[in-house]
Amino acid sequence: MSDTANDMPNDAGQRGPTEHAIRDQIVAAANEHFSRYGYGKTTVSDLATAIGFSKAYIYKFFDSKQAIGEAICAASLTSIVRHAEEVIADAKTPTEQMRRMFSTIIADTTRLAFTDRKVYDLAVTACAERWPPAAAYLESLHELVARIVMDGRRTGEFERKTALDEISRAIVGAMLTFLSPVSLQYNLDDVPRLPNEMVAMILRSLSP
Amino acid sequence: MSDTANDMPNDAGQRGPTEHAIRDQIVAAANEHFSRYGYGKTTVSDLATAIGFSKAYIYKFFDSKQAIGEAICAASLTSIVRHAEEVIADAKTPTEQMRRMFSTIIADTTRLAFTDRKVYDLAVTACAERWPPAAAYLESLHELVARIVMDGRRTGEFERKTALDEISRAIVGAMLTFLSPVSLQYNLDDVPRLPNEMVAMILRSLSP
Repeated sequence: MSDTANDMPNDAGQRGPTEHAIRDQIVAAANEHFSRYGYGKTTVSDLATAIGFSKAYIYKFFDSKQAIGEAICAASLTSIVRHAEEVIADAKTPTEQMRRMFSTIIADTTRLAFTDRKVYDLAVTACAERWPPAAAYLESLHELVARIVMDGRRTGEFERKTALDEISRAIVGAMLTFLSPVSLQYNLDDVPRLPNEMVAMILRSLSP
Repeated sequence: MSDTANDMPNDAGQRGPTEHAIRDQIVAAANEHFSRYGYGKTTVSDLATAIGFSKAYIYKFFDSKQAIGEAICAASLTSIVRHAEEVIADAKTPTEQMRRMFSTIIADTTRLAFTDRKVYDLAVTACAERWPPAAAYLESLHELVARIVMDGRRTGEFERKTALDEISRAIVGAMLTFLSPVSLQYNLDDVPRLPNEMVAMILRSLSP
């Protein structure tokens, strides 16, 4: 880490838990505001007025509106990954882990599209413009898949010839139409049958 | 066919080859106009002025601006499918057919994104809004894949247990991120490595 790291704003809360709490408060208020009025149409000034902080005060915690949007997205995408991890932990075999990982993530993302469309649209922007939380999300999915494939290699359920990173990339790439909020919105009618058939194909490709 | 079919406008050129020629002329002129000014910003009036026909005359051949857009899209997508068919015909094995089918289609679509962005954007709209030519395109891709899988079953290169339509759907579904102009535009940096790795995974899934 460079010497300048300590001078840079970050979300580790160097000014103590208070800063953390205020950041969370801004994110929660922004989330509610964006949910109602949309991200694109809201300015930081609107947001400041709505949540009763000055614009300057908000800028003490976030560099830009996008930084607030990124924090909301990150929270939403992280909760999807957490849920997938829980569901995987309960599955008995790596084959079942793979099935549940994708069915859970796709169900959660589909639910977001129907119940919180404005936040879903924010996630679409994040993925289309490759914001850091979207890149981190993809990275988490690669890691989850790699972990399941390794488990399956250990139990003898999956083949061991193909390079692990190639397999993980190909699997996430193949499921991307249903994983990415950008393309999922155009393919909601095909859920859950088509993604299930695709996972079945992936599992056939993994057979030893 | 119903009795009313003869009264309906269609593109089979019932008023003789002249109608066909005029339709083609309108499509070609519209294609050039859209390429320069974009589909969204052009009205049928603009188009009429630009190509020297009256608006009423254009409406004799096309119901709406979208109908003209659909004809342009259909021509573009059909030429991609034709090229894939040619390339498949030259391939020695079904495995090689599968590889070439996807590499050719993805290369052609990527080229369209870079060389004729306005028509590419029209294809994005067509796919996002599921216009008939986009649905027909998907259908052609399913048929191409099904034909290759049947060939591979005949030669013994591919497994025969899974239902053919399920396999074709899963394969096209898995490649959709790179086949659909909607999502390809966000994943151009991953071409050709990731789609190649995905096709390799699909071929592993097909092994007997």
